[in-house]
Amino acid sequence: MAAPANPIPTTRNPSAPQTHCLQNRETILNNYQTIRSQTESLAKPLAPEDQTIQTMPDVSPTKWHLAHTSWFFETFLLKPLAKNYEPPNPAYNRLFNSYYQQIGEQYPRPQRGLLSRPTVREIADYRAHINRAMTNLIKTLNEKDWRRAAPRIILGLHHEQQHQELILTDIKHVLAQNPLAPAAYAQDETPEPQNAPPNQDWLSFEGGETTIGADAADAADNPNAAFAYDHFAYDNECPAHKTHLPPFRLTTRLITNGEYLAFMEEGGYERPEFWLSDGWALCQKEKWRAPFYWRKNEKNGAAKNAVYEEFTLGGARALHEAAPVCHVNYYEASAYASWAGKRLPREEELEAAAANMPIQGHFGLRLHKDEVVAPHPKAAPRQPGMTQLYGDLWEWTMSPYMPYRGFQAARGALGEYNGKFMCNQFVLKGGSCATPRGHLRASYRNFFPPDARWQFSGIRLAEDG
Amino acid sequence: MAAPANPIPTTRNPSAPQTHCLQNRETILNNYQTIRSQTESLAKPLAPEDQTIQTMPDVSPTKWHLAHTSWFFETFLLKPLAKNYEPPNPAYNRLFNSYYQQIGEQYPRPQRGLLSRPTVREIADYRAHINRAMTNLIKTLNEKDWRRAAPRIILGLHHEQQHQELILTDIKHVLAQNPLAPAAYAQDETPEPQNAPPNQDWLSFEGGETTIGADAADAADNPNAAFAYDHFAYDNECPAHKTHLPPFRLTTRLITNGEYLAFMEEGGYERPEFWLSDGWALCQKEKWRAPFYWRKNEKNGAAKNAVYEEFTLGGARALHEAAPVCHVNYYEASAYASWAGKRLPREEELEAAAANMPIQGHFGLRLHKDEVVAPHPKAAPRQPGMTQLYGDLWEWTMSPYMPYRGFQAARGALGEYNGKFMCNQFVLKGGSCATPRGHLRASYRNFFPPDARWQFSGIRLAEDG
Amino acid sequence: MAAPANPIPTTRNPSAPQTHCLQNRETILNNYQTIRSQTESLAKPLAPEDQTIQTMPDVSPTKWHLAHTSWFFETFLLKPLAKNYEPPNPAYNRLFNSYYQQIGEQYPRPQRGLLSRPTVREIADYRAHINRAMTNLIKTLNEKDWRRAAPRIILGLHHEQQHQELILTDIKHVLAQNPLAPAAYAQDETPEPQNAPPNQDWLSFEGGETTIGADAADAADNPNAAFAYDHFAYDNECPAHKTHLPPFRLTTRLITNGEYLAFMEEGGYERPEFWLSDGWALCQKEKWRAPFYWRKNEKNGAAKNAVYEEFTLGGARALHEAAPVCHVNYYEASAYASWAGKRLPREEELEAAAANMPIQGHFGLRLHKDEVVAPHPKAAPRQPGMTQLYGDLWEWTMSPYMPYRGFQAARGALGEYNGKFMCNQFVLKGGSCATPRGHLRASYRNFFPPDARWQFSGIRLAEDG
Amino acid sequence: MAAPANPIPTTRNPSAPQTHCLQNRETILNNYQTIRSQTESLAKPLAPEDQTIQTMPDVSPTKWHLAHTSWFFETFLLKPLAKNYEPPNPAYNRLFNSYYQQIGEQYPRPQRGLLSRPTVREIADYRAHINRAMTNLIKTLNEKDWRRAAPRIILGLHHEQQHQELILTDIKHVLAQNPLAPAAYAQDETPEPQNAPPNQDWLSFEGGETTIGADAADAADNPNAAFAYDHFAYDNECPAHKTHLPPFRLTTRLITNGEYLAFMEEGGYERPEFWLSDGWALCQKEKWRAPFYWRKNEKNGAAKNAVYEEFTLGGARALHEAAPVCHVNYYEASAYASWAGKRLPREEELEAAAANMPIQGHFGLRLHKDEVVAPHPKAAPRQPGMTQLYGDLWEWTMSPYMPYRGFQAARGALGEYNGKFMCNQFVLKGGSCATPRGHLRASYRNFFPPDARWQFSGIRLAEDG
Repeated sequence: MAAPANPIPTTRNPSAPQTHCLQNRETILNNYQTIRSQTESLAKPLAPEDQTIQTMPDVSPTKWHLAHTSWFFETFLLKPLAKNYEPPNPAYNRLFNSYYQQIGEQYPRPQRGLLSRPTVREIADYRAHINRAMTNLIKTLNEKDWRRAAPRIILGLHHEQQHQELILTDIKHVLAQNPLAPAAYAQDETPEPQNAPPNQDWLSFEGGETTIGADAADAADNPNAAFAYDHFAYDNECPAHKTHLPPFRLTTRLITNGEYLAFMEEGGYERPEFWLSDGWALCQKEKWRAPFYWRKNEKNGAAKNAVYEEFTLGGARALHEAAPVCHVNYYEASAYASWAGKRLPREEELEAAAANMPIQGHFGLRLHKDEVVAPHPKAAPRQPGMTQLYGDLWEWTMSPYMPYRGFQAARGALGEYNGKFMCNQFVLKGGSCATPRGHLRASYRNFFPPDARWQFSGIRLAEDG
Repeated sequence: MAAPANPIPTTRNPSAPQTHCLQNRETILNNYQTIRSQTESLAKPLAPEDQTIQTMPDVSPTKWHLAHTSWFFETFLLKPLAKNYEPPNPAYNRLFNSYYQQIGEQYPRPQRGLLSRPTVREIADYRAHINRAMTNLIKTLNEKDWRRAAPRIILGLHHEQQHQELILTDIKHVLAQNPLAPAAYAQDETPEPQNAPPNQDWLSFEGGETTIGADAADAADNPNAAFAYDHFAYDNECPAHKTHLPPFRLTTRLITNGEYLAFMEEGGYERPEFWLSDGWALCQKEKWRAPFYWRKNEKNGAAKNAVYEEFTLGGARALHEAAPVCHVNYYEASAYASWAGKRLPREEELEAAAANMPIQGHFGLRLHKDEVVAPHPKAAPRQPGMTQLYGDLWEWTMSPYMPYRGFQAARGALGEYNGKFMCNQFVLKGGSCATPRGHLRASYRNFFPPDARWQFSGIRLAEDG
Repeated sequence: MAAPANPIPTTRNPSAPQTHCLQNRETILNNYQTIRSQTESLAKPLAPEDQTIQTMPDVSPTKWHLAHTSWFFETFLLKPLAKNYEPPNPAYNRLFNSYYQQIGEQYPRPQRGLLSRPTVREIADYRAHINRAMTNLIKTLNEKDWRRAAPRIILGLHHEQQHQELILTDIKHVLAQNPLAPAAYAQDETPEPQNAPPNQDWLSFEGGETTIGADAADAADNPNAAFAYDHFAYDNECPAHKTHLPPFRLTTRLITNGEYLAFMEEGGYERPEFWLSDGWALCQKEKWRAPFYWRKNEKNGAAKNAVYEEFTLGGARALHEAAPVCHVNYYEASAYASWAGKRLPREEELEAAAANMPIQGHFGLRLHKDEVVAPHPKAAPRQPGMTQLYGDLWEWTMSPYMPYRGFQAARGALGEYNGKFMCNQFVLKGGSCATPRGHLRASYRNFFPPDARWQFSGIRLAEDG
Repeated sequence: MAAPANPIPTTRNPSAPQTHCLQNRETILNNYQTIRSQTESLAKPLAPEDQTIQTMPDVSPTKWHLAHTSWFFETFLLKPLAKNYEPPNPAYNRLFNSYYQQIGEQYPRPQRGLLSRPTVREIADYRAHINRAMTNLIKTLNEKDWRRAAPRIILGLHHEQQHQELILTDIKHVLAQNPLAPAAYAQDETPEPQNAPPNQDWLSFEGGETTIGADAADAADNPNAAFAYDHFAYDNECPAHKTHLPPFRLTTRLITNGEYLAFMEEGGYERPEFWLSDGWALCQKEKWRAPFYWRKNEKNGAAKNAVYEEFTLGGARALHEAAPVCHVNYYEASAYASWAGKRLPREEELEAAAANMPIQGHFGLRLHKDEVVAPHPKAAPRQPGMTQLYGDLWEWTMSPYMPYRGFQAARGALGEYNGKFMCNQFVLKGGSCATPRGHLRASYRNFFPPDARWQFSGIRLAEDG
């Protein structure tokens, strides 16, 4: 703590010129094929039964994700731009429309699990149909239309990657409801640091003016912008803008299971004084007593530090105290911070801290065709400075998800992608072990309502500097 | 109507002596194998996805039915009587216990659709496991235990047949929720009488003393009774007892779609004066406007008699006016009767009318391995006398489902089979097109709550004689 | 038990000729004034605040009862028959219509507690307005209209008496929700038998043919019938009809708190085997652990037999073990009977047992203007033969509330009085300590759904003879 | 619009030295007596029945407000500081605790309408009891305790004033549910501008650094601070801090009913593209079609601009097009702004615009003992510059209600006053016609969830400068 404070970036590395991108249809086609096939590799180990059910309104069936991501390309690329494109089933327009009011009516979200048809196989056919048409479109579109199409394809690929993570969080919820506690994927067998985390340390940051957000030139659906998968940003990250940050301090790693157990042992879930009012009401009503996927270990005589086990995508496993606590919602994160006498970070603070760092961390998603290893967060590496800023877990911030000054939603239905959700949600930063690595950047703004527990979300603490 | 009234039976044909039954393990094994395999043939045309979901709390997934009927044999035969029987998965004891409190805890019924595992394939393995063990048990059990086992096997087979019908009514509900309106089975292509039903005629019955119900000697779990699949009766049909019936009259056939349309055209669903108070409240709340599976025909310019089509297990089809109206609940049946100035029959009246008639009628269930024809009720045959007493549709009676005088539930968990449901339900008589033919008899008492619409239930009218 | 069985009545005392009734407007006016004023005396000790709120959908505010009973006379007498009658407020037609669809729209029942206006005082004005107009109508109506009016007035008076009991059961519910546990009325201070009830004894009844129900000539809205307050019967009691009763046995008094405690101590509320399936589900969901108004006595060290106290209309009081258990619903009554190895009576059995007995018993309602003593059931008197058949508590029967053969609802809106409720309810017989004495007779059929606990309802056991 | 932009305040007038306040018990006693008596004058015209019921969970009965505000003084002043203080009823501690977990259990908020006792009269006695004890405490407390007490009394008085406004908004909701549409108070008869509002004009503000919030020295429960009713601020306004505001523009007055009608006529409630996603879902579910208290005028042939009337605390009245639209929630305000192509203001923008302006505007609350005039917003005055910044209506901002940097909740239970609600709410600024005038200041932060419609809330538009 006696260490001098770190400067926050006042300028950013200029983006490399990107004029090559538009010419390079081959790269985009390559991106398309890789990402689309990765989605399928996530579903492959699952039974059709697993892919069909819906265990709460927020969860979508795997097969719905597989169909909806195809619908996205069909709706925003093929229908407007592909000559003579024939949709395989007109009913899909409604069934797989998630929330785009301007596209038309949507099949009700809480009822997605009532649809046994189209089957997994029929949806595989639908995906193949879309892939053929998209391949053809990428290869043959005239140059003028290509300038409209390319940004939308890039958007579609990032959209697909968001749904890759949702497939994982949703199937985890599905399998967790089952008393048989089945594993979706193979347990990660790589050795992991045992129950001795690095000390919780703090890093100080100088205040000052810094730039937050992404250049609007990179935003979706901007036909005049240089454009590439690697330089993408969502509209909600735009425009880049200067802001003044007072000095602040952050913990160098995520809060661990062991630290969270200490909170629980001091009555974390029984003492309203740590909680936001809404959170406490829910905690009582829903009988929260531990993070979402913790279960009391039924084996008698389990040692005190083994009272709980954790349900993972690889099935139940013993609780590692050094691993970061995950599947806590904003209310729990906020209560923990309050108990610790600290606060959650602001989104600008985490963005500034991450700005010029490489996008490295524990990304658990290794997508080989048939062998998917269950992603799960790991203990922080024993190295100086900030760790776990990317990967492992999304980090709750205390920043309500609101538009940046000057934010403009895209025109048309794609304008519904982000803006209309800017209410009663909080920003999460950094990405998780279940996020595809190429999907992230410092300006990325994930967002969920404060009661959401089924995402890979964790806690980093902050305080004023 | 000028015809002389028909006598009701004052005596019944004595049952043939049944002492041969107990010796004949081969017959029972044969029954077992046939009925168990018929269940599977109903599921075979369905995708695993179809077999997994649950579209309302009353509906169970197909694969749950497949597992539960096996659990029944495991619980009541194999565990108590088979030496060294090993259950394949101890968790199944809870997962597939429907409502037997004395067996132990039950997985909550409304959450059966949250279980993707065991998969359809794993449940097929479970069935095969049970079948092997049951075959062995039937062949090898010592004589003393066999006297206990045989009645329970017979009960288990009738139980399995009840679930055959439930598989059909439940999968119909599942597929009907799907905007794609998929067919479960092939449409029945046998020619059907067109829109000219036989006239609605009335048959008069003399009053007098008659015997209702079944001989207790046939009842389940009575180790001293002669016993056979063909002579089975549930405990709720017992004891046989004399009752005095005043004269009454019944319509000779079921009410048709065309007749029900007339009720609708005269404001049947808008006029509270026809309805029971609870029924009217539900009619308003649930916005009932037609029988459960009727849909407005979306083709413009459809002729007046083609405003509706009907969803069947073979998909949507035009409404046949001569076919009996089906999937109406007790409230609708009662409102129709009230509009017609009549009443619904009492259960004793229908039992008396059916007592010495052969068990014939339209049983739609023809179970060949891979080709199941969708069961659906048909127009009444043009023949004199009572028709449609068996098959086509279960007939709502105005009789609350209550115990007969002298009713004794079986000892132990099997006593929960019927007795504890004797509250807030009404008796239905006769069987439907989806009932396995061998499952029925005049004393059979089916029962459902008055708001149940998803069963194959229809209307016959009665009046005092 | 060795006593010889008692005969059941095969004939009934013929009703006295009633031709005098129609002439006697003075008697009816006298009845009208007495009964109307008794209603007001029940409300008088209550604060306006007490009279306004609604603590569950089944409960109506006191002031609503006061208004609705006036609306009844306004709607069925004054509007159709009184010349130049001016309703004081046209909105009352909807606000105080309980359930008469043919009269017009009804203000939703569960929202009656959302109405602070009209105030208690305004409703008193409304009552006075109706009383003036009714007095004038009774005195001045021409003879032809009087023949229509008289039966309706009699019906209106019995209707008013039903609401007198409902005022009591509803205000008991209202005050019981209040942590201050206020008393509505003075505690009954008359000495009561202490904790030594008479032994539970059984009385046997011979079977045979008997007449059940009331003569149709007495039924409501029958302009040709001789008619008097004392000879009234509701349409649901008609027609009188012969029925054959097998021999049966009844306990000579109601089940006591002490006996019910024994049921509880043997796990009555924890053992599903005693319960109907629906009842057990509700017992679990609603966490029933004792009769509705029992509360754990918070005084530490209370003797075992003083663990509970009872909330009464006179406030909380110690539980008297000799007093009959009250405020149990059908499910509890049925579970108790099942635990005791007996059954509940049939309605015909209680009617036959009561038929030629005087209408005597503990009627707790003594209506003096300002001093109402809180009605509450008392221990059975130590006398031979059947006791408590009238008064004390309504007795649950196992008879679903269904129409008698030949039942005809009245024409017009008054036909909605009873018939449309004949579904999912059970008959109760005998009357309670809160029933106005003159309101009862052997054929009276009260009815409530099986989950209703807030009425003065208790248990008598039966068994086959 | 060509007008030069207005500067925002860079410094603020220093607060006058306040050392006199502590000495002046007489002033505080005077404030106490005035404000407490004003609360009672609001309740006086209401019937006990009006004061008792609760028409939605957010609404509290008038008599609960009257009791709770007394409980506040009892709990935070009398119990800790008054010698020998005797609470009149220990049960009140729970019944009238709103949400202070550290004080103890709370009677459930949604059930406040189930309490008929204590009656209005008993609560008047409770208030009198508290007033006597408080008067004595203010006069006799020793100096050391007085330094603790004074800030709490001031807080208690502002708390009481908040509840004065809530009494009005809650009783408005109560009476609006009643089909009789009763008026709580006399209609305001002072002449009002007719349907010709001043033009909607815009005022530009220069950007720059400005100070937001209130000096911590004024905050509640700070025993070292100089302290007075006039210099009070809640903890959520603290600490005062500098912030940099980019240039912005505001409309000079509130949006009118006429302007809002134009939004409605262009499909405001039917076009999802204007709405936040959550808001649109609620709009559909709750069938919002107009502001909360607008009703279709049932008089046939009403002129187009008279299709609606408005329910006010003085009863129904014709819709004044020039008056500001009120009782819209955040979703409606946001949809209106989106339709208009603008945005809602940020809280800092409104605070900067109001900073050095006098606290003037239409405050409708004139509290004379028996004659309360119904507060309702009025058309903007025809005068240059910003109008309606104070009074008339609370103005929705787009600022989520979050803590200021450096915010510290008070120690102890009073720390629950504000901080724990900082989630899923939005800030409103300026005050309404129902706010007591002395209760307001530029830094005041009111807050409600985005779906709240029953407050006096309106719309001012903003855009980036």
